[in-house]
Amino acid sequence: MTERVWNFSAGPAVLPLPVLQEAQRDLLALPGVGISVLEISHRSKWFDAILEETEANLRQLLNIPAHYRVLFLQGGASLQFAMVPMNLLGDGSADYIVTGSWGEKAFQEAVKIGKARIAWTGKSEHFVRTPRPDELDIDPNAAYVHFTSNETIQGVEFQQEPPVGEVPLVCDASSDFLSRPLPIERYALIYAGAQKNAGPAGVTIVIIREDMLERTPPNMPAMLDYRLQAEHKSVYNTPPVFAIYLVMLVTRWLINEIGGLERMQQINRQKASLLYEVIDQSNGFYRGHAHPECRSVMNVTWRLPNEELEKAFLQEAQAHGLYELKGHRSVGGCRASIYNAMPLEGVHALRDFMRDFLQRKA
Amino acid sequence: MTERVWNFSAGPAVLPLPVLQEAQRDLLALPGVGISVLEISHRSKWFDAILEETEANLRQLLNIPAHYRVLFLQGGASLQFAMVPMNLLGDGSADYIVTGSWGEKAFQEAVKIGKARIAWTGKSEHFVRTPRPDELDIDPNAAYVHFTSNETIQGVEFQQEPPVGEVPLVCDASSDFLSRPLPIERYALIYAGAQKNAGPAGVTIVIIREDMLERTPPNMPAMLDYRLQAEHKSVYNTPPVFAIYLVMLVTRWLINEIGGLERMQQINRQKASLLYEVIDQSNGFYRGHAHPECRSVMNVTWRLPNEELEKAFLQEAQAHGLYELKGHRSVGGCRASIYNAMPLEGVHALRDFMRDFLQRKA
Repeated sequence: MTERVWNFSAGPAVLPLPVLQEAQRDLLALPGVGISVLEISHRSKWFDAILEETEANLRQLLNIPAHYRVLFLQGGASLQFAMVPMNLLGDGSADYIVTGSWGEKAFQEAVKIGKARIAWTGKSEHFVRTPRPDELDIDPNAAYVHFTSNETIQGVEFQQEPPVGEVPLVCDASSDFLSRPLPIERYALIYAGAQKNAGPAGVTIVIIREDMLERTPPNMPAMLDYRLQAEHKSVYNTPPVFAIYLVMLVTRWLINEIGGLERMQQINRQKASLLYEVIDQSNGFYRGHAHPECRSVMNVTWRLPNEELEKAFLQEAQAHGLYELKGHRSVGGCRASIYNAMPLEGVHALRDFMRDFLQRKA
Repeated sequence: MTERVWNFSAGPAVLPLPVLQEAQRDLLALPGVGISVLEISHRSKWFDAILEETEANLRQLLNIPAHYRVLFLQGGASLQFAMVPMNLLGDGSADYIVTGSWGEKAFQEAVKIGKARIAWTGKSEHFVRTPRPDELDIDPNAAYVHFTSNETIQGVEFQQEPPVGEVPLVCDASSDFLSRPLPIERYALIYAGAQKNAGPAGVTIVIIREDMLERTPPNMPAMLDYRLQAEHKSVYNTPPVFAIYLVMLVTRWLINEIGGLERMQQINRQKASLLYEVIDQSNGFYRGHAHPECRSVMNVTWRLPNEELEKAFLQEAQAHGLYELKGHRSVGGCRASIYNAMPLEGVHALRDFMRDFLQRKA
């Protein structure tokens, strides 16, 4: 068997090895069923049980109250950029807090659908931070406020929810979902593509407060209609069965092996601090992109003194088994995505390499 | 390991055993890569190669001309029901030929978006057949004509394309895609959810003639925009990586193990005729749903003299390792879905059981 490398990809991203091993073991036939999870009918009692456990695990991990629905959809966060305004906007206007590339994309999709305005953007500062509460220009009558809890490309993360008063809060949590506990009651809607912390690419998790379902206008295309998807418990049509099964295995791992999201958050903070420490102690050789108080625990982003050194860093890292450390093509530099499933051991290996490279090149 | 049963599910459906075995073998790490296909970045050169081979295999199998684009999308055929009119309708009106439940759903979604009319429907006859050419009421100025090549629920299949003159022909081919050769030039757009013949649930294949891409109106939400998806070669956002990889393995199997779609069609016809023979020679004990000249080679549908016998049939079948033979809840009865990956051996087992049950109960 090919040996596994350390995969710092921003998503699709590393999955817990025990999850991969269980999926592999049962891939030809689910125990006691005789059918592969890749072949099983979404109307079967076996899939009912998979769907039920996946939702129950998410409810347990995030303490999701009963008046919130959990949906499993397709199309990634990018389809949610359109579905949120299509379902929630009505004749109103929405406020967008933009702290990076994904928040910008969400806003651009919203203005195709209806009225939306920028409540704050960090664009002129190259997206290095989240806004202070006093900088936010929130319309108290807005249909909703949208923000991106963690900007995967810039590595900028909200440490807590932005204060928006009584306006319904909508969050793209794709890249820090399940990395920490969340006060779900503060949200009207949370969505997340699974391919960072929750599973493989191909399923999007939506947590929506029930009163939001009443906003969907008539004649919405069925697949884009939150209310219909909730009524049909995510099986209006054939859902991405295998991807949901993987989310079940990942959430089971979080509960049984990790011990819940508070513990997961501790581990994640420990991993991130190992890398930020090297950056901060490098006398400016490694320059972190985000302001220290807004640094992402999931995506650590930094530059080297010049592009030549960045290229050498990435090449040498790969030779040491440290993969996918190149920053997003839109911003350059380096990025280490250290989601839940990246073991401490992998972060140690990266930390040691960063120190060694610094000593040799600084 | 749990022994595999014969799975006659209408979809998600049985996959070729060698495909499952290869996916299983490499699930922890792709050979020479060291990263699982469940974890691999969609911007990696490894995924580029997967996407490229999948498309090349489809082009080879179906003889797809250069002026057609091949897209890999999400949301199943149900999302295509909306995307087709959103992109192609403009201010025009579309004609729908309705031969079963899926065609009806496609029409219902179209009238939410714009103007659409029924060019023929078999509803009053309970969807037992396709229309004769002289029954079709096609508007020569229609934006497109939509039909469903194989109605999975009723088991009614077009033996050839409906004659629509110069009007662009759009086909939902979900449940007979890759089961036989297709004259692609007769079509403006073909779409298919993968979970019957092409792969697992979670990816939809769209084959679209390039001139159709020019119809997309401005300000279309990005994920619903055929032109944008074509420009970005299906990686505008994170695609369902694993599902596409499985389509690659399935199409490879069709080319290397089966020997192409003409051979696949021969095998499929042979399998279907085994079951239709039992039905036709049962003196009315088994009553086929579809008219003989419109019978589906993929989904064989039939009734027994009464519901009690149907229940006994399904129970005994399952005890013989023959699973998922219950007809769709909307029509009742029995249905055997015998897609590409269902081996002749499985159909023999079902045929033998049907004969035995007939002898004991008729």
